[in-house]
Amino acid sequence: VADRRFFERSGPFKLGELASLADAEPAPGCDTDLIVHDTGSLESATGNEISFLENRKYLAAFENSQAGACVISTKDAERAPAGMNLLFSSNPYRSFALITRHFYPEKPVLGGRHASASIADTATVSATAEISAGVVIDDDAVIGDEVHLGANVYIGPGVHIGDGTRVGACASLEYCEVGRNCNFHPGVRIGTRGFGVAMDPRGHVELPQIGRVIIGNDVEIGANTTVDRGMGPDTVIGDGTKIDNLVQIGHNVEIGKNCIFAAQSGIAGSTKLGDFVICAAKVGVIGHLTVGSGARIAGMSGVVKDVAPGETVAGIPAGPHREWLRKQAYLENVAKRRGK
Amino acid sequence: VADRRFFERSGPFKLGELASLADAEPAPGCDTDLIVHDTGSLESATGNEISFLENRKYLAAFENSQAGACVISTKDAERAPAGMNLLFSSNPYRSFALITRHFYPEKPVLGGRHASASIADTATVSATAEISAGVVIDDDAVIGDEVHLGANVYIGPGVHIGDGTRVGACASLEYCEVGRNCNFHPGVRIGTRGFGVAMDPRGHVELPQIGRVIIGNDVEIGANTTVDRGMGPDTVIGDGTKIDNLVQIGHNVEIGKNCIFAAQSGIAGSTKLGDFVICAAKVGVIGHLTVGSGARIAGMSGVVKDVAPGETVAGIPAGPHREWLRKQAYLENVAKRRGK
Amino acid sequence: VADRRFFERSGPFKLGELASLADAEPAPGCDTDLIVHDTGSLESATGNEISFLENRKYLAAFENSQAGACVISTKDAERAPAGMNLLFSSNPYRSFALITRHFYPEKPVLGGRHASASIADTATVSATAEISAGVVIDDDAVIGDEVHLGANVYIGPGVHIGDGTRVGACASLEYCEVGRNCNFHPGVRIGTRGFGVAMDPRGHVELPQIGRVIIGNDVEIGANTTVDRGMGPDTVIGDGTKIDNLVQIGHNVEIGKNCIFAAQSGIAGSTKLGDFVICAAKVGVIGHLTVGSGARIAGMSGVVKDVAPGETVAGIPAGPHREWLRKQAYLENVAKRRGK
Repeated sequence: VADRRFFERSGPFKLGELASLADAEPAPGCDTDLIVHDTGSLESATGNEISFLENRKYLAAFENSQAGACVISTKDAERAPAGMNLLFSSNPYRSFALITRHFYPEKPVLGGRHASASIADTATVSATAEISAGVVIDDDAVIGDEVHLGANVYIGPGVHIGDGTRVGACASLEYCEVGRNCNFHPGVRIGTRGFGVAMDPRGHVELPQIGRVIIGNDVEIGANTTVDRGMGPDTVIGDGTKIDNLVQIGHNVEIGKNCIFAAQSGIAGSTKLGDFVICAAKVGVIGHLTVGSGARIAGMSGVVKDVAPGETVAGIPAGPHREWLRKQAYLENVAKRRGK
Repeated sequence: VADRRFFERSGPFKLGELASLADAEPAPGCDTDLIVHDTGSLESATGNEISFLENRKYLAAFENSQAGACVISTKDAERAPAGMNLLFSSNPYRSFALITRHFYPEKPVLGGRHASASIADTATVSATAEISAGVVIDDDAVIGDEVHLGANVYIGPGVHIGDGTRVGACASLEYCEVGRNCNFHPGVRIGTRGFGVAMDPRGHVELPQIGRVIIGNDVEIGANTTVDRGMGPDTVIGDGTKIDNLVQIGHNVEIGKNCIFAAQSGIAGSTKLGDFVICAAKVGVIGHLTVGSGARIAGMSGVVKDVAPGETVAGIPAGPHREWLRKQAYLENVAKRRGK
Repeated sequence: VADRRFFERSGPFKLGELASLADAEPAPGCDTDLIVHDTGSLESATGNEISFLENRKYLAAFENSQAGACVISTKDAERAPAGMNLLFSSNPYRSFALITRHFYPEKPVLGGRHASASIADTATVSATAEISAGVVIDDDAVIGDEVHLGANVYIGPGVHIGDGTRVGACASLEYCEVGRNCNFHPGVRIGTRGFGVAMDPRGHVELPQIGRVIIGNDVEIGANTTVDRGMGPDTVIGDGTKIDNLVQIGHNVEIGKNCIFAAQSGIAGSTKLGDFVICAAKVGVIGHLTVGSGARIAGMSGVVKDVAPGETVAGIPAGPHREWLRKQAYLENVAKRRGK
C-alpha cells in the first residue's frame, strides 16, 4: 500500500518465486502458486499480500493478521492463523527485505546532466551518471557509471565515486574515494576536517588534516552524518557497513566490514573497529581504542577502553553487559528500599 | 534593541493593547496608556520598553530593572521595583512571546521566483510562493500559497507543502506531505531513508522504505534535524509540535500534537508518543515503545520501556524521576563517605 | 605521504628551521642541517621525514620508528632509537602541528566569482574573495578580503564576514557577524532560530529570536554544527574557540576565548562559559549556567549546575571528577561481588 505518488511497484509475483529469492522455505501446505501483489504490515496486509514476523512483541498482530502469506521463524508456526501461507526463514526480516526489494527496486538511474550543474572541465563524468540540478563537481573528480548525484550536491577536487553509488541532496564529498553501490543520504559530509587541535595556553593550533576517507562498496551513510578525513593516515569504512543519521566518525578511524552504527553515535579519532561490530544509538567511543569483530555496544554507552571480539558492553563507562545489569539491579533495589 | 540590519520593528503600541493580545491582566495602578516602543531583557529594558520575569533565577535582575513595564506572575508582584507597570499572566513567557511577535512579526513572504531556481514543468507552485536562488523543485511537487523556500533548498518529487510554510536554506524535503504554517530551519532533512537494515552474517540487507512523512500544521523543525520516512506505515508529526536542532526521528515514529523535543534527542523506529510529551535535550528513546500524553523525559535519559501518561522519567535506563533522585542521592553519599 | 591528488606539499626544509618555527629545541647531537621532506606517523616516517610523540600509548612505535627526526618531550628522550634527530618541545603535538602547517599550508584563496553564484546587488564582496559555484549572497551582506565561500553556500541578508574566513560547502550563515580567519566546515548552520518556545496547554508559542551571533577571530566550527542566534541578547563565540562536528550551541550562549567543544556536545540557552573551557564529546550543559575559565567537562557528562573555574567534572548529573571515580569504583565493586 505504498503511495504511488512516491513509489513504483513491480509484480505481481508467485509466492514460490519470492520464497526462492528470499532464502526462505515454503512450509508444508503452503500454496507456492499464490499470486502476491504487495508487501504489508501484519495489521494491513490482505490475502494477496505478504508480511513478516520478527519482533515477538507483535505476536498478537500475527495471530490476527489477514496476510495471505508471511515469512516467519519455524518456532512461531504454531501461532499462525489458519489458512496463512507460511515461509520459514532463519532471518525473517532479511527475507522480507529481499522480497520488498523485489517489489520496490531502487529507482533506475536515468542519466543526463541538468543544465544548472557546474562541472569542471577536468572532471570525468560517466555518460550514464545522472547529475541533478545545482550539482557542483570540482576539478579532476571522477564519477562512475550509473552514479546518481542529487540536487545541490558538491563533489570536491579529485574525489572518485564508484559505479552505482547514489548521493542524496545537499551532500558534500571531499578528499575521498568511494566504492560501488554506496548510498549516501542527504546532507552527508564526507572528508571534512578532522578535529586535530593542539591545545595550548598560547592559543590552540590546528593540525592540517592531510589524509583521505576511503569507503568500500555497499556502504550506507545516513542523513547529516559526518565522516572526517584522516590526519595523515586515512579514515576507512569497510564494505557493507551501514551508518545511520547524525553519526560522527572521527579522523583516522578504521571501520571493518558489515558494521552497524545507529543514529547519533560517535567514534573518536584513531579508533579501530573489526567486522560486524554493532553500535546502538547515541554510543560514544573515545579515541585510540580497538573494538574487536562482532562486539556489540549498547545504546548510550560510553566506551573508554578496548572491547574484545564478540563482547557486549554497556554503561558509562562501558563494561561487560552482565555487570551493567547487576549495577542497575542494585541501584533499583536501593531506590525501592529508600522509597518506602 | 534588535539590530536594524537584521530585524524590523513594528509599533509603538499602548500597554493596554499589548496586555490584551498577550492574555495578560494589567495590575492595579498600571498605566495602560503607556506607549511601549520595544521589548527588552530585564537588564536592558528602559522606561518605554517591556520585559518579563519567568525564571526566578532572575529575581534580582527584576528588582533592579528599569523596564517601564513587565509581564510577571502575580506571586512576584511584591518584588517589583517602584513605578514599574505590571501585567499579570498565568504564563509570563508566553505573554512575552505574543508581545514580541507583535513587535517583530515574521518577515512577509514577498513571492517571486529567482531566475536560478530549477522548477520541474510538472510541479505546481503558487504564484504567491517565494522561491529563492538555487532552489530545486522536482516533478509533481505542489507548493502552497505564501510558502517561502530558502536558498538552495531541494523539494523532491510529489512533495506537498501547505500554505504559509517556511523552509530554511539548504534543507531537503522528500516523500512527505507538510501542513500549513510550519517552520523548517536550515539543513533539515525530511523523508530520508529509514534505517531498516536486516543484519545477517551473509551481509546486511537494506529494507526499502516505502512510507512517507506526514507533518501537521504549525510544526517547527530545527536546523540539521533528520526525520526518516516510514518503512511502510508513515512517520507522523502532529500539529503544533516543536523540534529543536540535530534531533533524529526514526521511521514509523508517530508523534502527537504539541510535543517538545529539545536538541540532539532521538526517537527510534516505530515508537508512538501522545500529545504534549516533553523530551529534554539528548534524550534517547528506543524503538517500538509507547510514551503517553503529557509524559516528561529528563535530559540525557535513555528510555527503554513504555512511559505512562503524565509520568516523569530520568536516567539510563530511565525510571520514575523520584527513584532516579534517590539513586543519585545514594551514590552522592557513597562518594562523600569514601572521600573522607 | 599525503595523496598528491588532494594535498600540495611545500619544502623541503632544514630541520633547524622547523625547530625554530615550532618553538622546539634541537636536542644535543641533533643534525639541524638535516633536509626534511615531509611529515609522517611514527610507523610510516622515513629518514628524511619528521614525526612526533605525544600519546605515550605509542611509545613502542616510537622506539621502533625509522623517522629521521621527531618532536618529543624531554622525558621520552631515553626511549629514542639510535640516530634519530630529536627536537624537544613543551608541547610536541603543537610543534608538530606548526611544522605540518609549514609543509601543508592552507590552499590559497584565488579569488573570482563563479558564473552560477547569485550575488545581491546590495551586497559588498571583496575583489579578492573567492565565490564558488551555486553560492547565494543576500542583500547587504559584506564579504571581506580573501574570504572563501564553498559551493552552494548561503549568506543571509546583512551578514558580515571578516577577512580570510573560509566557509565550507553547503553551509548557511544568517544574522551573524564573523571575524577574521575563521574556518567553518561544510553544512554549518549559523544564526538559526533559537528554540524559544513558550509551552502552554493552549498551544505553544514561538518567541521571535531577535538577537545575532557574534563570532570572533580564528574560530573553527565543525561540519553540520548548529549555532542559534540570540533571543534578544546575542550568542557570542570568542576568539580562538574550536568547535567540532554536530555540536549544538543554543541561543544567548556566551563562549569565551580558546574553548574546545568535541563532537556532538551541546550547550543550552543563556549559559556562559569562560576562556579555555574544554567540553569533551557528547557533553550536555543545561541553560542559564556559568562555567568558569579552564573548567573541563568529561565526555558524555550532563552538567546541571555551575562549574567553578579550573574544575573537572564528570557524570550525569556532573559532579567533581574524583567523586565520579569513587561512585564508579563502588558500583564496579558491587557488580563484581554480586557476580560471584
